[in-house]
Amino acid sequence: MRASQFFLSTLKEAPSEAELPSHKLMLRAGLIKRLASGLYTWMPIGFRVLKKVERIVREEMERAGSVELIMPAIQPAELWQESGRWEFYGKELLRLKDRHDRDFCVGPTHEEVITDVVRKEVKSYKQLPLNFFQVQTKFRDEVRPRFGVMRAREFVMKDAYSFHTDFDSLKATYQTMYDAYCRIFDRLGLEYRPVAADTGSIGGTGSHEFQVLADSGEDVIAYCPTSGYAANVELAEAVAPATPRPAASAPMCKVHTPKVKTIADLVSFLNVDIKATVKAVVVNGSDGPVLLLVRGDHTLNELKAEKIDGIDSPLTFAAPADIEAAFGARPGSLGPVGFKGRVIADRTVAAMADMITGANEDDQHYTGVNWGRDVAEPEVADLRNVLPGDPSPDGQGELALCRGIEVGHVFQLRTKYSEALSATFLDRDGKSQVMEMGCYGIGVSRIVAAAIEQNFDERGIVFTDAMAPFTVGIVPMGYHRSETVKAAADALYAELKAAGIDVLLDDRDERPGVLLADGELIGLPHRVVIGDRGLKEGNVEYQQRRDSAATSVPLADVAALIRNKLAS
Amino acid sequence: MRASQFFLSTLKEAPSEAELPSHKLMLRAGLIKRLASGLYTWMPIGFRVLKKVERIVREEMERAGSVELIMPAIQPAELWQESGRWEFYGKELLRLKDRHDRDFCVGPTHEEVITDVVRKEVKSYKQLPLNFFQVQTKFRDEVRPRFGVMRAREFVMKDAYSFHTDFDSLKATYQTMYDAYCRIFDRLGLEYRPVAADTGSIGGTGSHEFQVLADSGEDVIAYCPTSGYAANVELAEAVAPATPRPAASAPMCKVHTPKVKTIADLVSFLNVDIKATVKAVVVNGSDGPVLLLVRGDHTLNELKAEKIDGIDSPLTFAAPADIEAAFGARPGSLGPVGFKGRVIADRTVAAMADMITGANEDDQHYTGVNWGRDVAEPEVADLRNVLPGDPSPDGQGELALCRGIEVGHVFQLRTKYSEALSATFLDRDGKSQVMEMGCYGIGVSRIVAAAIEQNFDERGIVFTDAMAPFTVGIVPMGYHRSETVKAAADALYAELKAAGIDVLLDDRDERPGVLLADGELIGLPHRVVIGDRGLKEGNVEYQQRRDSAATSVPLADVAALIRNKLAS
Repeated sequence: MRASQFFLSTLKEAPSEAELPSHKLMLRAGLIKRLASGLYTWMPIGFRVLKKVERIVREEMERAGSVELIMPAIQPAELWQESGRWEFYGKELLRLKDRHDRDFCVGPTHEEVITDVVRKEVKSYKQLPLNFFQVQTKFRDEVRPRFGVMRAREFVMKDAYSFHTDFDSLKATYQTMYDAYCRIFDRLGLEYRPVAADTGSIGGTGSHEFQVLADSGEDVIAYCPTSGYAANVELAEAVAPATPRPAASAPMCKVHTPKVKTIADLVSFLNVDIKATVKAVVVNGSDGPVLLLVRGDHTLNELKAEKIDGIDSPLTFAAPADIEAAFGARPGSLGPVGFKGRVIADRTVAAMADMITGANEDDQHYTGVNWGRDVAEPEVADLRNVLPGDPSPDGQGELALCRGIEVGHVFQLRTKYSEALSATFLDRDGKSQVMEMGCYGIGVSRIVAAAIEQNFDERGIVFTDAMAPFTVGIVPMGYHRSETVKAAADALYAELKAAGIDVLLDDRDERPGVLLADGELIGLPHRVVIGDRGLKEGNVEYQQRRDSAATSVPLADVAALIRNKLAS
Repeated sequence: MRASQFFLSTLKEAPSEAELPSHKLMLRAGLIKRLASGLYTWMPIGFRVLKKVERIVREEMERAGSVELIMPAIQPAELWQESGRWEFYGKELLRLKDRHDRDFCVGPTHEEVITDVVRKEVKSYKQLPLNFFQVQTKFRDEVRPRFGVMRAREFVMKDAYSFHTDFDSLKATYQTMYDAYCRIFDRLGLEYRPVAADTGSIGGTGSHEFQVLADSGEDVIAYCPTSGYAANVELAEAVAPATPRPAASAPMCKVHTPKVKTIADLVSFLNVDIKATVKAVVVNGSDGPVLLLVRGDHTLNELKAEKIDGIDSPLTFAAPADIEAAFGARPGSLGPVGFKGRVIADRTVAAMADMITGANEDDQHYTGVNWGRDVAEPEVADLRNVLPGDPSPDGQGELALCRGIEVGHVFQLRTKYSEALSATFLDRDGKSQVMEMGCYGIGVSRIVAAAIEQNFDERGIVFTDAMAPFTVGIVPMGYHRSETVKAAADALYAELKAAGIDVLLDDRDERPGVLLADGELIGLPHRVVIGDRGLKEGNVEYQQRRDSAATSVPLADVAALIRNKLAS
């Protein structure tokens, strides 16, 4: 492509709304342009990147045996009512009425539609398994769209769905898709990690997220460098301490703790180790307020808490008035001693002795609280988020934490949708059975932002060969002023194009500094600078995007050099 | 592709909702599956056809210098309010509110959004001309979605937009795009005609439709076989009669015409030539009812009528009560004699003498009515639809009529949107100017239906090589029972695939009759049947979809034969 026949439009400064590096760089490099909150046009240069990602995703889906189709973006409410998600999905589902006042939504996902297609098509076990995918623009009406295309309202997604006679068949396809996802992210050149994950609003029994590692990621991942264990911190199990609960060694004492509202206040007021303190959180449950206890330096994992029977899901915190009525004290001085309701202690708290807790009396705490002596043995559960250094749940090392951007998610849905929508088949014995089902998503447009978040420097984006809008940039110094430069640039352009290489010849009539800076900003992985001075010796300057300096290369050799680099 | 790893699902009978051959065949061949009114899933086999069309469209757009991007499908109301179309567009525009109660629509077209992009990007004449395109799923909330994907609510469209410093530049790009459209429809192997067209709700000064010729088409095209003139009948000019108005030869007489309500009644009651009668239509105008007159055998062209100054647009017919008040008679006996309001005569009527018209008295008509003698000379306009045999407006022959399916439309929008949205640039003299603009649409998904409407037989669809879901079908007779057949089929499949040919090996364990019928139904252009009997002689059966019988060909030669057929 010649830049004069393309559309490049870069900015010196990113618009002030952009926070993340990827968002700033995508705006500055002209990859996207904002239309409205969470709605972006993919400009020509960004569109090329998007298509390159899409192509790799498509190739690997086909290799994995998934068959492409495309379902309507607009979906009738009836199917969502059948699955129960019309009520459940909340405001992220963009709902609308057609001219006949019938309810529809703009699909954020397609479990209902594909299950409807399959239940109409499949009668017999002989037709299974099936695996379909599509690449589609979806809509999710985010509360707070942000970070450009990272959390946009309209986005491009690859979603796949598989249908099976039994769980073993589902597990086999799940593994095939898992492997395909690894190949996709490998080919894209991303540093990523598959992690065990919660199934969230999609539902089902098991799932993995594919997280691109980046400091700015919204997700926290717990992983074990020695064993390979990895899970979203939402899900990572905090195992019980290896050592048993010590014996009680102190009497229970009430201490006046004026103005102590937080664990930090308490630690500083009593001058004690934070690990001796216990944090109390009161949530709503089916039989009234429930007291959850985690150690002072730990944080409550809300997802774990809301999965406990009898606790409201989604989790809600008890109102101040309800807390005072139940405990006789305000938050800041709460604890298990004397509380008549349900008490659940995190595994770590259950193994503590001589605890410091609130006394259920304003500005009063107890020290030396012991289970079984001062207060009944509690119900025990895993309630907290893991911390670095915690033992890995697989027993083979210690956990570390890092941040990631979720770009893919695979789910074993089992029969959640097939049962609700009666997607059945006749088995070998002629008996009707409900299909097993899996679903597999990739955030195609988000991958572009995630890749940039992981690969940039002060000069701009650093794209891999696989994702770059153009693999090679030819930058002639004086295309419109030197016949020699023009001839050399045109010849190299023709040679690289003939070799099937995606090349941009920047023939715009701009200052050399602008051409060089734009090429670096948009992240082209390979650059050839052609100028009169070098051509006198028959040379051009070749540089990879990460290189600190260019190398002088004979013009006659540079195409072969690039072909070799791309092949390796 | 092996059929066992693909998804084929054909039906013996089309669902009863389908009327058109293309709709029936697309459902029977499993190309599409209905989700709701006007909403279809493109099943794997149909998806392949859609992608082949899309690819040709994309290649020709790129060849024409248009640069691809993708804009959001969901558009904010503000831009449509700026252009004035939020009010004007009516119920076909699917409107919705987001979670913050802000107005949006699901875009049926993108003039507003692209103009917004360009007005933010372009400052100088040096940046023009620009030409962008996208391939996108759009939504139009049709009153009566029908004929499957022919008139669906959700559809795939290629829309392109160009921006210019002046009209000459617009005209040059318009011609480039017009030529690209011709190449697209040529490559798709469609019989089509570019016709002059009305600009409709898009607006602008000039436009052409690309019509695929088919008897079932909703559009009527007037064309001149000798001169090449072609226009949508909505737009085709009915020229004035070549011969001047004859002199009056009869006196005006009032005739009692009981029960005569229509022109047919009148002709039969008076036993006269229909060409002596005049039809009266009363429409609403800014100064009250307007009487439009066309000859008895002609039909009113509503689009022509509503373009006349002082007549309401869109055209509305006068209410019966208003008619009685203005004429003193009911419809069926109306005419110009004695009417005090505005009278507009079609060019043909203006050239008539001794006319038969209503007398503005129930059950009474006049014969022998003459302009200038019995009634004032009327205002004259082109009011009627052309008929076969009418002179061509270019003066070079006679018109014929045929039916077509609109699959493309190009518009010279001029400054309709750029002015409303203030898309300006600084010219060479530093003066601010409004951009000239063009837009260019292709109904990608409709093309599939139109192609089938034009190419089918009693056995099913007949696809061209360019559009077929697979170019070649290999049909082994007994793949699961004969090792020889299996080996030959596998080898040929590998050979054709290696040659880059898109081939379907139907390795399903079905009866031969099913495999043969399915291949014909889905319209594969080339078929190779492999059976034990032929293989004994080293032969297979080759047949093109339109052939009445197969040809015996040595297995060793059939790949070369097919390569030759495809190359020619």
